[in-house]
Amino acid sequence: MQRVDFYFDFISPYGYLGSLGIETLAARLGFAVDWQPMLLGVSVMKVMGLPPLGETPLKGAYSGRDFRRCFRFLGVPCRPAGAMQPLPAGRAFTWLRDADAALAKRFAQAVYRAHWSEARDMSSGAALAEVGVQLGIDPAELCAAIADPMIKARHRALVDASLARGVFGSPTFAIGSELFWGHDRLPQVERWIERGGF
Amino acid sequence: MQRVDFYFDFISPYGYLGSLGIETLAARLGFAVDWQPMLLGVSVMKVMGLPPLGETPLKGAYSGRDFRRCFRFLGVPCRPAGAMQPLPAGRAFTWLRDADAALAKRFAQAVYRAHWSEARDMSSGAALAEVGVQLGIDPAELCAAIADPMIKARHRALVDASLARGVFGSPTFAIGSELFWGHDRLPQVERWIERGGF
Repeated sequence: MQRVDFYFDFISPYGYLGSLGIETLAARLGFAVDWQPMLLGVSVMKVMGLPPLGETPLKGAYSGRDFRRCFRFLGVPCRPAGAMQPLPAGRAFTWLRDADAALAKRFAQAVYRAHWSEARDMSSGAALAEVGVQLGIDPAELCAAIADPMIKARHRALVDASLARGVFGSPTFAIGSELFWGHDRLPQVERWIERGGF
Repeated sequence: MQRVDFYFDFISPYGYLGSLGIETLAARLGFAVDWQPMLLGVSVMKVMGLPPLGETPLKGAYSGRDFRRCFRFLGVPCRPAGAMQPLPAGRAFTWLRDADAALAKRFAQAVYRAHWSEARDMSSGAALAEVGVQLGIDPAELCAAIADPMIKARHRALVDASLARGVFGSPTFAIGSELFWGHDRLPQVERWIERGGF
């Protein structure tokens, strides 16, 4: 089965929209989606040397308005919890992913929905554990994983791998060496999958 | 008749794609398109304080690949002439626009096509005059306008007006106070026009 690697950061509302779009497309066309963590704080600020999107003159004000309009356009409930600390969620996802990728995906989907559609701040281990328990994930184990130096290192290694592949934005869809940045590139992803490139 | 203001920079291949898309949409839905010059060098570098797209790590390499893929996706011939000096074309457009907006638009369309689809570098007055002559524009007058301090000031005033409206990227489509950045926002422009907002 063909595979699309889906790179995302939990702090990215466009990443949430991309996650919904790629899974809808995957269900229709029949391909696998491998969710991979990336961190905008690393790619944007440390590698590209740019300020955070929200703090960029003109573009910051625009993007705050644009992402809400994109939610409305796609019919996705938009109730953002505000700025999110991404490391606990990224580490929890990494911990789950190595054991059970399908469960990790369901967890990430639930975290995205809670933070961006239900105004539930997903910055803390306690908030993440509350989401996880609904999926049968032990809260104490999840909180321990977030604080585990091995998991932190593993998360960082996955983030480094995203950079090595050229990923800098969320969402990014990767098919082999071809990268598609932005949920608005999904029509191109669709054609790429259907035709094997174009 | 409803109006969409279309902000563009000649150096922007996405601006070229946006110009094709907005005019196609306008012909179908029946609205006016007012072409307005902006300069990425001013908005990106001076106002936002960012490096040029092509020089940004990761994103620069991606965008060089992405714009070519967007051309293929849309079936637009892609034969770029390379980096373009945008001031002569912006000033020539400004000069024409104040006298005859329809002619200015046809000129801009021809310049875009020459530079991005026909590998003809549009950086110089001589190259622009060659395009203009096909539209009945006097070459000597065009070259004089490009060097005219009044035209330079008028061009700069239009660019300042784009910034005052919050425009920072090319293409940007503006409907009243609503801005849509990127040719990939055309589906949203379409719905906005059809429904009067969403």
